Amino acid sequence: MRTIDWVDGAVELVDQTLLPGKCVMLRIHTVEELVDAIRRLAVRGAPALGVAGALGVVLADGDLAAIAALRAARPTAVNLAWGVDRAAAHLSGGREAVLAAALRVRDDDIAACRAMGERGADLLEGDRLRIMTVCNTGGLAAVERGTALGVVQTLHERGRLAEVLALETRPLLQGARLTTWELARMGAPHRLIADSAGPYLLAKGQVDAVLIGADRIAANGDTANKIGSYALALGAERAGVPFVVVAPESTIDPATPSGEHIEIEDRGAEEIVTIGGTRLAPEGTRALNPAFDVTPHDLITAIVTDQRVIRP
Amino acid sequence: MRTIDWVDGAVELVDQTLLPGKCVMLRIHTVEELVDAIRRLAVRGAPALGVAGALGVVLADGDLAAIAALRAARPTAVNLAWGVDRAAAHLSGGREAVLAAALRVRDDDIAACRAMGERGADLLEGDRLRIMTVCNTGGLAAVERGTALGVVQTLHERGRLAEVLALETRPLLQGARLTTWELARMGAPHRLIADSAGPYLLAKGQVDAVLIGADRIAANGDTANKIGSYALALGAERAGVPFVVVAPESTIDPATPSGEHIEIEDRGAEEIVTIGGTRLAPEGTRALNPAFDVTPHDLITAIVTDQRVIRP
Repeated sequence: MRTIDWVDGAVELVDQTLLPGKCVMLRIHTVEELVDAIRRLAVRGAPALGVAGALGVVLADGDLAAIAALRAARPTAVNLAWGVDRAAAHLSGGREAVLAAALRVRDDDIAACRAMGERGADLLEGDRLRIMTVCNTGGLAAVERGTALGVVQTLHERGRLAEVLALETRPLLQGARLTTWELARMGAPHRLIADSAGPYLLAKGQVDAVLIGADRIAANGDTANKIGSYALALGAERAGVPFVVVAPESTIDPATPSGEHIEIEDRGAEEIVTIGGTRLAPEGTRALNPAFDVTPHDLITAIVTDQRVIRP
Repeated sequence: MRTIDWVDGAVELVDQTLLPGKCVMLRIHTVEELVDAIRRLAVRGAPALGVAGALGVVLADGDLAAIAALRAARPTAVNLAWGVDRAAAHLSGGREAVLAAALRVRDDDIAACRAMGERGADLLEGDRLRIMTVCNTGGLAAVERGTALGVVQTLHERGRLAEVLALETRPLLQGARLTTWELARMGAPHRLIADSAGPYLLAKGQVDAVLIGADRIAANGDTANKIGSYALALGAERAGVPFVVVAPESTIDPATPSGEHIEIEDRGAEEIVTIGGTRLAPEGTRALNPAFDVTPHDLITAIVTDQRVIRP
């Protein structure tokens, strides 16, 4: 299954807000619809956002204001702007040239995820690996196979996966809703945990490696990823467990010297004070909601890309 | 308001499962009802469990099997067994002697929390303190004033509190439901955050001190507390922020040499795969649910009790 694709003149993508209850394909015909889908996280995940950005330029049909709006729809993930730029570079060649460039972004992602899966699985030692991960970095976050969860899939195909401990990933529960759904589809053994249990289970010796994705990697190797990644990095360092970032080369942003220069999106109080429409906190409660955090490069054992292994 | 008390021949306690929506007082006449209230967390918090244990011995009316069942209702918090034992030591003196002993446990808690509040506020430096805390350690977790949140209350009364960042505390959301409710009642500025944002906000310099409670403190200073405490301790150490445990002397368990000997309660999958009755994860998803974690003593700046400050 492809999570996002170009089908009969429109962008088709799985509405991830409805999973795991329903698997619904959206057909998107305008940049406005696409920006809305990105903002409400119907499509999410750094590589998928890159493909969405590129395909969105086809929908924009030369409207530069629409392209600019699309490029800025989510600030932390570099892939969105990168995908937009890759397709927009062919605007002078007309619609067919833009479409061809966008489809190359899609096909490159499929190939890159396969390469990351192989390289990540080769990097890790051991035959019965217990992997901890946060958020969703599977096929849903890319096109066919994922980044960190793509490595898990390759390990599972090679018979080397013992178990995945998946963090539920508050506030939007991508781990509870999406990662468990993908792992069940692959037949991979897994258990769900509260986010705050991650560092403790690392300390208890229940994990052989932490695998996460990335939304932006600064020039010095500092990495922005889903909120909670930094806490796992601290826990992994103390426990002596490898902490591995899996992301395509396009996630590396040489224009950002270090993590402190990465803009972190605050998604507002509503996601924190409610869950699935149910109010959790008293009326009037204020909240802080950084959607991402930054893991300093000294806590990262390795960054696995589609082309190489970087040891920051 | 007293969260738990002895009124007209029965235990009265606030049903914390109904907060913040409703504030309902339960009247409890039997040990069986009390054990049920403890198991389903209608009453929770280490000091409150100590008082519940002592008052429960009055309800047991000499039934030793009932006393043993009460003592074992929750394994991690040492205060429950300690409160039971303090009252049960007077069984030979008859019901009046047991009741008098149980009321001393209650009165001692009230005095101890006041003392901890003063000592903790004296210990911290600075005039406009930004405090991070997890779970609920306020009046709801004790009788009148709390432990860590008791220090917050004293700081606020002294005009030295800038803000509290309260972790929501998955899975049962004591932070989102109870701590915000108590802070609003005190008029203390606060914002709610996802648990996994704690270490990141520490790294960003947004916190002057972390204050937490404890369910059991081992002889070497290792401390069991709500899951997520250990992650905050790692974050505080890296950020150079004081990490302070606030708990009565009764929480110190000299019979437990170190944290690895503390039994950690797993509360089962249901709390993780659902929230407020709403299913989050796909049907059949398994979960791990350690309700507490252990913070090694080397990560603890100070333990503030009702009698002293310990620097492990």
